[in-house]
Amino acid sequence: MVRIGILTVSDRAYMGKYEDLGGPAIKDWLSFNISTPFETVSKIVPDELKDICDMLTTWSDVTKCALILTTGGTGPSPRDVTPEATLAIADKVMDGFGERMRQISLKYVPTAILSRQVGVIRKETVIINLPGQPRSIKETLDELFEAIPYCVELVSGAYIDTDPDKIKAFRPKK
Amino acid sequence: MVRIGILTVSDRAYMGKYEDLGGPAIKDWLSFNISTPFETVSKIVPDELKDICDMLTTWSDVTKCALILTTGGTGPSPRDVTPEATLAIADKVMDGFGERMRQISLKYVPTAILSRQVGVIRKETVIINLPGQPRSIKETLDELFEAIPYCVELVSGAYIDTDPDKIKAFRPKK
Amino acid sequence: MVRIGILTVSDRAYMGKYEDLGGPAIKDWLSFNISTPFETVSKIVPDELKDICDMLTTWSDVTKCALILTTGGTGPSPRDVTPEATLAIADKVMDGFGERMRQISLKYVPTAILSRQVGVIRKETVIINLPGQPRSIKETLDELFEAIPYCVELVSGAYIDTDPDKIKAFRPKK
Repeated sequence: MVRIGILTVSDRAYMGKYEDLGGPAIKDWLSFNISTPFETVSKIVPDELKDICDMLTTWSDVTKCALILTTGGTGPSPRDVTPEATLAIADKVMDGFGERMRQISLKYVPTAILSRQVGVIRKETVIINLPGQPRSIKETLDELFEAIPYCVELVSGAYIDTDPDKIKAFRPKK
Repeated sequence: MVRIGILTVSDRAYMGKYEDLGGPAIKDWLSFNISTPFETVSKIVPDELKDICDMLTTWSDVTKCALILTTGGTGPSPRDVTPEATLAIADKVMDGFGERMRQISLKYVPTAILSRQVGVIRKETVIINLPGQPRSIKETLDELFEAIPYCVELVSGAYIDTDPDKIKAFRPKK
Repeated sequence: MVRIGILTVSDRAYMGKYEDLGGPAIKDWLSFNISTPFETVSKIVPDELKDICDMLTTWSDVTKCALILTTGGTGPSPRDVTPEATLAIADKVMDGFGERMRQISLKYVPTAILSRQVGVIRKETVIINLPGQPRSIKETLDELFEAIPYCVELVSGAYIDTDPDKIKAFRPKK
């Protein structure tokens, strides 16, 4: 069974001062669009480099997630360190993910360029930083996800497919 | 009062063999478009890594500029080292700035992709490399600037606003 | 005479299990579009970091290629290390090349964002990673090449021109 990690990075959500909306938004999106069986693991961590790195490496190396999606902590503020943590534990950086996500969000808000979201590979896990806001998460995944199942397959061998009436997962013909 | 640094990087302008056109073009653009009070500091340095690093760190750490705009030295030539200097003193790299500036300039010239311009954050200062040519500076700022006041605010707390008839500074609703 | 290196990176082509189609596709494209005299050197290496680095440095430092085009090894798979090798021997990274190539390929396939292609400068050599598939090579060069002759000229002084009925090499007026 394909395992997908959903990591919410937020001081306020971690301390319970704020309801985590990003994590559930990701889970809802996946449940609605993915047609093959999968299970999720979810967690909320504060905006601390070490906590984020620890969860990403555990979910990659031990829990064997094929895909990890993070939400939050990608802006220019001093406490925003999700990209730093993701890059710190990466084997390969996939610049195209960050570029594409900013392009997508730029259709909605000019400040999309302030996001430092990255996509990377660690061992057999694809890790992608999503925005913090539920609306932006949906806008991003609606356009980005078609390239993700093929990437996951190349990296881990795991097979994810989508409901083609909603999202058409693209796999190039060899 | 918000302080903005304007750094011209050019061997020829530094030696007086060439009039600095980039620095004044930036100052004129800011004066025309920014509606809130601000003061500028300006300097010309040669295409030397150490000189550029020294000015950027002094203007960030001592002069407390909320924003520094550089012009010149971002091409592929051996003497072009402005991006190297900017990255060397950066705390956070904002990939979206470089990507967006190349996208903007690509509407005008195919060789826009040769620019290595970057945007970074050092402490409470946003630092952005602009092109060398006055025309390209205006083309870039006309489209890019709408995202800058919000970035400056997140990083330093300083407030910059623009004349909305010219440029509409964008601030996302929380 | 301008010298151009064409490096095919592929385990299967190196072992003779697979005909090298990428290298010849690049050579054909250059012969068809470049109008000034040039000579090429070609080689097939396996997907090994050291082999790729060795060829790139030899062709840059000893053979004095003004331009090196690679094909293959830029995906997310564990054996894909062409970008790592290219970055390892680079003096300057030209982010605009990778961004632009992904933008071009994205018009054809959503999985274009999975390519980690980079463009760099080493000494007096411009080095660009192209896709592996002949069709994608042509799609990329048809749009990208207009910016390459000016880059090569700035870096090495070598002059490349194209048949303007096919591709218009762009050189900004000073």
